[in-house]
Amino acid sequence: MIDLDETHDPERRSWVKSANDAATDFPIQNLPLGIFSIQAQQPRLGMAIGDAVFDVTGAGTRGWLTGDAARAAQAGGAAHLNALFALGNGPLRELRRQVSALLDRKQAAREVLDQADKGLLHDRARCSMHLPARIGNYTDFYAGIYHARAAGALLTPENPLPENYKWVPIGYHGRASSVLVSPGSVRRPHGQLPPTASGQSPGFGPSQRLDFELEMGFFVGAGNLVGQPVPIEQAREHIVGYCLLNDWSARDIQRWEMFPLGPFLSKNFGTMISPWVVTADALRPFRVQAMRRDTGDPQPLGYLVDDADQRHGGLDVELSVGLRSQQMRQQGIAEVEILQSNARHLYWTPAQMVAHHTSGGCNMESGDLLGTGTISGPQPDQLSSLLELTFGGTRPVLLPGGEQRAFLEDGDEVVFRGKCRREGFVSIGFGEARGLINA
Amino acid sequence: MIDLDETHDPERRSWVKSANDAATDFPIQNLPLGIFSIQAQQPRLGMAIGDAVFDVTGAGTRGWLTGDAARAAQAGGAAHLNALFALGNGPLRELRRQVSALLDRKQAAREVLDQADKGLLHDRARCSMHLPARIGNYTDFYAGIYHARAAGALLTPENPLPENYKWVPIGYHGRASSVLVSPGSVRRPHGQLPPTASGQSPGFGPSQRLDFELEMGFFVGAGNLVGQPVPIEQAREHIVGYCLLNDWSARDIQRWEMFPLGPFLSKNFGTMISPWVVTADALRPFRVQAMRRDTGDPQPLGYLVDDADQRHGGLDVELSVGLRSQQMRQQGIAEVEILQSNARHLYWTPAQMVAHHTSGGCNMESGDLLGTGTISGPQPDQLSSLLELTFGGTRPVLLPGGEQRAFLEDGDEVVFRGKCRREGFVSIGFGEARGLINA
Repeated sequence: MIDLDETHDPERRSWVKSANDAATDFPIQNLPLGIFSIQAQQPRLGMAIGDAVFDVTGAGTRGWLTGDAARAAQAGGAAHLNALFALGNGPLRELRRQVSALLDRKQAAREVLDQADKGLLHDRARCSMHLPARIGNYTDFYAGIYHARAAGALLTPENPLPENYKWVPIGYHGRASSVLVSPGSVRRPHGQLPPTASGQSPGFGPSQRLDFELEMGFFVGAGNLVGQPVPIEQAREHIVGYCLLNDWSARDIQRWEMFPLGPFLSKNFGTMISPWVVTADALRPFRVQAMRRDTGDPQPLGYLVDDADQRHGGLDVELSVGLRSQQMRQQGIAEVEILQSNARHLYWTPAQMVAHHTSGGCNMESGDLLGTGTISGPQPDQLSSLLELTFGGTRPVLLPGGEQRAFLEDGDEVVFRGKCRREGFVSIGFGEARGLINA
Repeated sequence: MIDLDETHDPERRSWVKSANDAATDFPIQNLPLGIFSIQAQQPRLGMAIGDAVFDVTGAGTRGWLTGDAARAAQAGGAAHLNALFALGNGPLRELRRQVSALLDRKQAAREVLDQADKGLLHDRARCSMHLPARIGNYTDFYAGIYHARAAGALLTPENPLPENYKWVPIGYHGRASSVLVSPGSVRRPHGQLPPTASGQSPGFGPSQRLDFELEMGFFVGAGNLVGQPVPIEQAREHIVGYCLLNDWSARDIQRWEMFPLGPFLSKNFGTMISPWVVTADALRPFRVQAMRRDTGDPQPLGYLVDDADQRHGGLDVELSVGLRSQQMRQQGIAEVEILQSNARHLYWTPAQMVAHHTSGGCNMESGDLLGTGTISGPQPDQLSSLLELTFGGTRPVLLPGGEQRAFLEDGDEVVFRGKCRREGFVSIGFGEARGLINA
């Protein structure tokens, strides 16, 4: 069993009443980090608690935090969490422990309760969220094997699962500048569209096959130096927290541009993440065994193998995608859930991705973002992009109100959600990654 | 003719005597920017002049610069040039113009001459150079068509020049964190090595096919916002300057990992650039017509076509690669030049790369670095990587002293140089990108 402490205690309740609602993503057992602002004030570090945001920077300034936690709160007082992440998991864990005590119904001091309404606790609906980190580098992996098979069958039918797939945690460098925070919008990209026949000219115009990809993202805490790989045994300690990630994709642009150097403009017009970083610490109860290999699958090479990672390196996060079109909004029709999946369906663990990424000497920096790749599951309703779900656009999804979707239309809003549930524990969630398509 | 001013005047001489040597890369007509430091002092903005570095930050502090130039010098006073680049080409041009006057033998004020030896002019050999910018994003293109053909024939013989090549300025996102400044060393990466036969296991160990790639790099000045492409007519104004770029590559790792998402660990262990940014302004006399298309080649799509870019968008930069092994150093044998090429051999201009990069809405930030891709020429001694030069390692290069090189060995030092020459103008150069291979 992974070691747990009082912050995971299912009996713990908060004096913030909405945090005790069974449906909330943000009970006192979660306490994810984010950068928020109120009106024109300076962005600062907060933790989500129920329907509210607790001002951690303010708590630090008032002297309510001590030692490592005070240091962590101070590092997080900038408009981004890079300096806090750089401290690593120890101080972050202590910060979460002390804030948990401050928000605990039984433990909170009179002073905290008295001042809570005087500027330290904010209605979450009134807070603007910012990117949690200044993302110096963004890498996207391809660790969802069901996605690799399904997408591979459509994009490269002659070779659905690449020969290297079960050996190499395949990844590529994404665009850091266009990582956007939810809620937000992306503009439908224009680009070169594939020729309709070999020898014909490509077109140029708005993508006709705009898609989402359901992924999780995770942030680097302490970094490593160039030329100094992170061994697999230490890799997990370099990950400070997780979020939801929508790797918006233009399939027509992608198909034409990606040979031989990989996706470029088909992805770099925007990548959207949820604003709350759920800490590695909060996720401890929801760690599971890494995905089992099929009989006949090779054993990974030594630099990717660690017993503890095999036992606890997987994550049990239920994921879902909701869609609401402009017409549905106009007709007052609620968002419809079009697919569910689970982070268990990753062939490689986040620790394996970090170990692989650094194995040749590449340095990672605090605040770097890594994406898992699209997390599809084995069932037809677990295919986590429209490309897969509609079999390349040939079997459109039917929406309430009578519309069909092969790919995304202008005005469509896509919402990712993530939830961790386990018998004997309070469920925690990731909030939303919510994005609207504009013309 | 592109408009030139007194800074390009071939008659202009500097009171810094070494700047008047015909062989120098850094006559008064060049004045490239860099971030330098002396001993333990704070890194600051300098311009290379002959064998010296002129302290531009210091000149600004003393009030020798006015208006835009003073503003530019102040922006460049940080440990990186991002804020200076963000001002765009106008202030940068004015800065270069005023520093040129300060260093001019005829124009320099008594005060400048008197103080030059008191801390504003430094022996270049004693200066430490730093990365010129905090590189938020690094993109590498594939615009050298002779390289694409030669490398393609080796890596993907069934398809040497991709079907999209003459339509798409192919590029991919590189790793920003491991961009290193010359002079420096890179550690030979370990990684997965391709199976020796299909169905076999890959190996893991030090790359046996370590290579360089001769490229040029260029820096983004003023950026653009997400969703707002830069039109081709404006694209050149977003480029502030150029450097040499060595895209170190591990060919064995590359071959195994790169399908389907492109190169990753085979490149991200280190990318090396020369420390001096030769400004777009200094390069004006050396602009040439963009590469002529072969008969039968398609006209580029409209978003990539601009008359001025076709007339002046190319660059005439003579490039060379020198190599010196450990044994050669031990035996006192000088470096040997193993190939020459020229930036004229780029199929796409830098402006086309910027227009393409932003065409789907991707935002560029000040200080972003773009690489051209390997610049090979049509001749056998113009193939600008060992992969090409040795035909995949099958025809090793013979070194003085009797050694052979199919790929790089530990202790090898690789030196890139670049020079612009034109009748009626003073030649300017790029200095060196010098890198040593360590075990």
